[in-house]
Amino acid sequence: MRTSIATVCISGTLEDKMLACARAGFDGIEIFEQDLLVSPLSPEEIRARAARLGLTLDLYQPFRDFEGVEEEVLRENLRRAEAKFRLMNRLGIDTMLLCSNVATATIDDDALAAVQLRRLGDLAQSYGVRIAYEALAWGRFVNTYGRSWEIVREADHPAVGLCLDSFHILSRGDDPAGIEQIPAAKIFFVQLADAPVLSMDILSWSRHYRVFPGEGGFDLVAFMEHLVRSGYDGPVSLEIFNDVFRQSDVERTAVDGLRSLLWLQDRAATGLKGETHPMQLRAMPDVRPPAGLDYAEIRTGEPESAARMLAQLGFEFCGQHRRKPVQLWAQGDVRVVLNGQRADGAAPAISGLGFQVEDPDGAVERAIQLKASPVARHHTADEQELRGVGAPDGTEVFFAPTSQRPAWMEEFGAGTHYPGGQGPNALVTRIDHVNLAQPWQSFDEAVLFYESVLRLETRPATEVPSPMGLVRSQVMRTGDGSVRLALNIVPHGLEAAPSGPGSYPEHIAFHTTDILAVARRAVAAGMHFLQVPQNYYEDLAARYPLDPATLATLQELNLLYERDGEGEFLHFYTETIGNLFLEVVERRHGYEGYGAQNAPVRLAAQFERNRLRRR
Amino acid sequence: MRTSIATVCISGTLEDKMLACARAGFDGIEIFEQDLLVSPLSPEEIRARAARLGLTLDLYQPFRDFEGVEEEVLRENLRRAEAKFRLMNRLGIDTMLLCSNVATATIDDDALAAVQLRRLGDLAQSYGVRIAYEALAWGRFVNTYGRSWEIVREADHPAVGLCLDSFHILSRGDDPAGIEQIPAAKIFFVQLADAPVLSMDILSWSRHYRVFPGEGGFDLVAFMEHLVRSGYDGPVSLEIFNDVFRQSDVERTAVDGLRSLLWLQDRAATGLKGETHPMQLRAMPDVRPPAGLDYAEIRTGEPESAARMLAQLGFEFCGQHRRKPVQLWAQGDVRVVLNGQRADGAAPAISGLGFQVEDPDGAVERAIQLKASPVARHHTADEQELRGVGAPDGTEVFFAPTSQRPAWMEEFGAGTHYPGGQGPNALVTRIDHVNLAQPWQSFDEAVLFYESVLRLETRPATEVPSPMGLVRSQVMRTGDGSVRLALNIVPHGLEAAPSGPGSYPEHIAFHTTDILAVARRAVAAGMHFLQVPQNYYEDLAARYPLDPATLATLQELNLLYERDGEGEFLHFYTETIGNLFLEVVERRHGYEGYGAQNAPVRLAAQFERNRLRRR
Repeated sequence: MRTSIATVCISGTLEDKMLACARAGFDGIEIFEQDLLVSPLSPEEIRARAARLGLTLDLYQPFRDFEGVEEEVLRENLRRAEAKFRLMNRLGIDTMLLCSNVATATIDDDALAAVQLRRLGDLAQSYGVRIAYEALAWGRFVNTYGRSWEIVREADHPAVGLCLDSFHILSRGDDPAGIEQIPAAKIFFVQLADAPVLSMDILSWSRHYRVFPGEGGFDLVAFMEHLVRSGYDGPVSLEIFNDVFRQSDVERTAVDGLRSLLWLQDRAATGLKGETHPMQLRAMPDVRPPAGLDYAEIRTGEPESAARMLAQLGFEFCGQHRRKPVQLWAQGDVRVVLNGQRADGAAPAISGLGFQVEDPDGAVERAIQLKASPVARHHTADEQELRGVGAPDGTEVFFAPTSQRPAWMEEFGAGTHYPGGQGPNALVTRIDHVNLAQPWQSFDEAVLFYESVLRLETRPATEVPSPMGLVRSQVMRTGDGSVRLALNIVPHGLEAAPSGPGSYPEHIAFHTTDILAVARRAVAAGMHFLQVPQNYYEDLAARYPLDPATLATLQELNLLYERDGEGEFLHFYTETIGNLFLEVVERRHGYEGYGAQNAPVRLAAQFERNRLRRR
Repeated sequence: MRTSIATVCISGTLEDKMLACARAGFDGIEIFEQDLLVSPLSPEEIRARAARLGLTLDLYQPFRDFEGVEEEVLRENLRRAEAKFRLMNRLGIDTMLLCSNVATATIDDDALAAVQLRRLGDLAQSYGVRIAYEALAWGRFVNTYGRSWEIVREADHPAVGLCLDSFHILSRGDDPAGIEQIPAAKIFFVQLADAPVLSMDILSWSRHYRVFPGEGGFDLVAFMEHLVRSGYDGPVSLEIFNDVFRQSDVERTAVDGLRSLLWLQDRAATGLKGETHPMQLRAMPDVRPPAGLDYAEIRTGEPESAARMLAQLGFEFCGQHRRKPVQLWAQGDVRVVLNGQRADGAAPAISGLGFQVEDPDGAVERAIQLKASPVARHHTADEQELRGVGAPDGTEVFFAPTSQRPAWMEEFGAGTHYPGGQGPNALVTRIDHVNLAQPWQSFDEAVLFYESVLRLETRPATEVPSPMGLVRSQVMRTGDGSVRLALNIVPHGLEAAPSGPGSYPEHIAFHTTDILAVARRAVAAGMHFLQVPQNYYEDLAARYPLDPATLATLQELNLLYERDGEGEFLHFYTETIGNLFLEVVERRHGYEGYGAQNAPVRLAAQFERNRLRRR
């Protein structure tokens, strides 16, 4: 599949954009007119630069408001078009996008539109270029791909074909299956965009909220499968209007975009297995979602405070790494690595996660094909090689074989014991979820990363009020819930904070089947809990018919409580050290949430504490 | 009028919010349940603190999903309500907001809802509190104020009345005139919110985009007039859910909120002049919109570069201030003050604007009543006292009498001449507009400031693509166009930049009736123009049927061109110095825009130049 991207998707000057697209690995680009107009580069210079970078120039766009008009307007439109055809000749671009008329169309007549497109086709042909006609979802008369296809068929001109754009089709709820019926030779160009499911006017939705495939709510895989079945094998291009992407680092956004097309190819290749079509889809190593977390890693220049907290929660010290200042802590099969390799005494933060996968090498290979950056971890010949990649939020993602006693543990702790298995003191049974802070610039990128690299599924997002703004929380998890990540978009006020107190803290949540025992043990060990206000418990009493003894126990242990149908959720938070705190949760009767109603209590308490520390 | 505000409008902890509301000057507040739940303060402590701050606690909210349910659910709801009534007694709050049922209502029967509200009224009465029933725009069955009033009337209970919320009424396009027909004694509470005109689902619109009155597109003045005519004289409260306000400085947002109510009172008092009603509306000094700009002030530690640019545009030096390192430059009656009182050699930036008003003292008094901060400007006994206030974006707004030769000019330039009047070289005839950068946190505040303090009108906003993101541009102007400000929201990537190169630049645009002469004179004087790419002119030729000679002249002089119907706009930009550049515009045949199609050319060129300087 030939990959392409419209220059409007990303930030910077046209030069920046071309360079970033080439570096990311796109085959070609669409020149968005605005980017050319403001560029000091001449068309010839742009053409030469693209050639040097190995990029094809696949489309010139957009040309607007052509058809469905009176003869006088049409003549002026042909004059406009001819100027652009000359420009395209200089650029060496052979296809122009024509959007269905939104502003000047006065005649609602497909036959007339076809005749006018035919005249445009004649003119285009004389310049050796062709017209890809696209139905905008808000076109004045033509706003479905079915109708644009009728007009193109009626025009019956070799230089007039279709452009299909997934946004315009899927945003209207149109069925893309009809694409299979369109002769591939008449599909001149294809643009892909995903979008979050929003209920707003389509124009605003399209102009501000589009995202790369896999980052929104559209079924782009099915769309792609219909497209491949049509026989189309031209460029598949991204056309994303997104307010955030326009402000983000251009190289990074370009990589994010290419990743979306690689992911989509892989998904479609899987869906179309056994079928043969002209378009060659590149598949990647097939991996299954992770079976669980091998370990979580906390990096800190002062490991003592994190170690104390782990001990209070019942974790045992299992030894120091034989070469490095790295400690292993475990409870049953739940492992936490405390990495002290930070010279600057930096505050604790979650730095890495080990995911248990069937085929670690395949998983790494897939991640690297998806343009993830490998993480180099030094190891000696007799040490386990752990391979991983960096996630967009900076978390290191490692792939480990599924094992109750991973081989890397051998590198830890001669002279110490490892509790192993489910001893009577092992009340924590697994890492329930990990909450990771996401800068607003890279949130969509992170969703696609975790979806494509780890095969996690996206759940509906929630918004949690905090004293410094709404926190958007997006859960990504395996279908079976064995791995759950909660991605939190950090409010603007905290985004630029250094990693000292004041940044948005991340946390690891441990699951237990006896939270009261874990909490009591922690109290006995002198743990500092996040304090829950009395007002919360009074509201709890109003909200749920809880018996007074239960309520008293919850309050005594600073436990939070939430109910969802039959399900019950009990949890508590530790104090925050650096940018890290820990949570212990108990899920009863199939509760599947994360205590969203209680999160504001935590955020308010953490806000107050941060402020006190800053003073 | 008693002013109130819901704590959910602003950021911080409950303590922060109460303090900020008291300092801003609100009479009371609504306690939003979430803020209480997460607070370590007990209800008694909150009550005592409010009393100390001089704030009344006007409402407890929200209570949800009560009516239209089966008996079993109702009994549970009454139990929930009773707990809240006890809490309200401890807080000393006598009114609870009840939202129409959105989630649990199963019975669409107004008579039943009335009976159930009556039962709630009985319970409320036994605690000495009362219920203000509000129709949410997305209520399951009850979603108009007309229907909520029918139910309240049917309930016929002294402890059951209405809460009216302007958002829920106006967002649905409901006519608020019917409010006048509701007996004032049955209106227990009133909440006001404005909102930008958006086409999206009402719930998202309400939860994220509400703004203070005067900052959006609703006619809150008419709403207020209907309310006053009803005879209501209880608290008028702000209930604004806004993602930005939640992240902004709490004290500043509280002042912004109070300003909106002061402005609204003033407008309603004007509209209801001569009528008498129970509600006392506080009017402010009545001022007319400014007649023009007396001067624009540029502050810079290195005045030479700005002075050179002004000279190249035909301005003449009219002398130094007798005491201060401040220069006056003029062309005809267009005056620019170059203020060198910056010790640090800071880059040039627009620091102040003098507005010509009929009654400067009244205008200052009005601004101060609107909670603007006075700007102190040192002056001696024999110098003109200029009085002004600070705008939210930091610009100093001064009020000066309308005069062709203002008295303050006498303080400048013994020994120099002042050109005065329209000499043959005075090609610049007025300041056409001033473009001011706005941080995203204070944009809505700025709109209300310029509307309430200067009586400027808001025009529809536009969005302009730039290499660092979309720039939102909001024009505010007098009806006659004699004063025009363009407020630009700065993209995130540039917001934190220091005032050196890299910040979003501001500009002053001068109007002329002969831009070719101004440009030629500037060329002859060695002016550095912002360079316009060749591609732009080629597109211009495609876009408009311009004759080749005109096109050649435009290109020769780096002029930009835009057409709107018969109207034509020609303009050019200077290079940027510090955070400032200048523009010269010519409006032909009634053109009323600002060359929005050309702004991307400027933004791209400035982006590239900034990058080069940063290297």
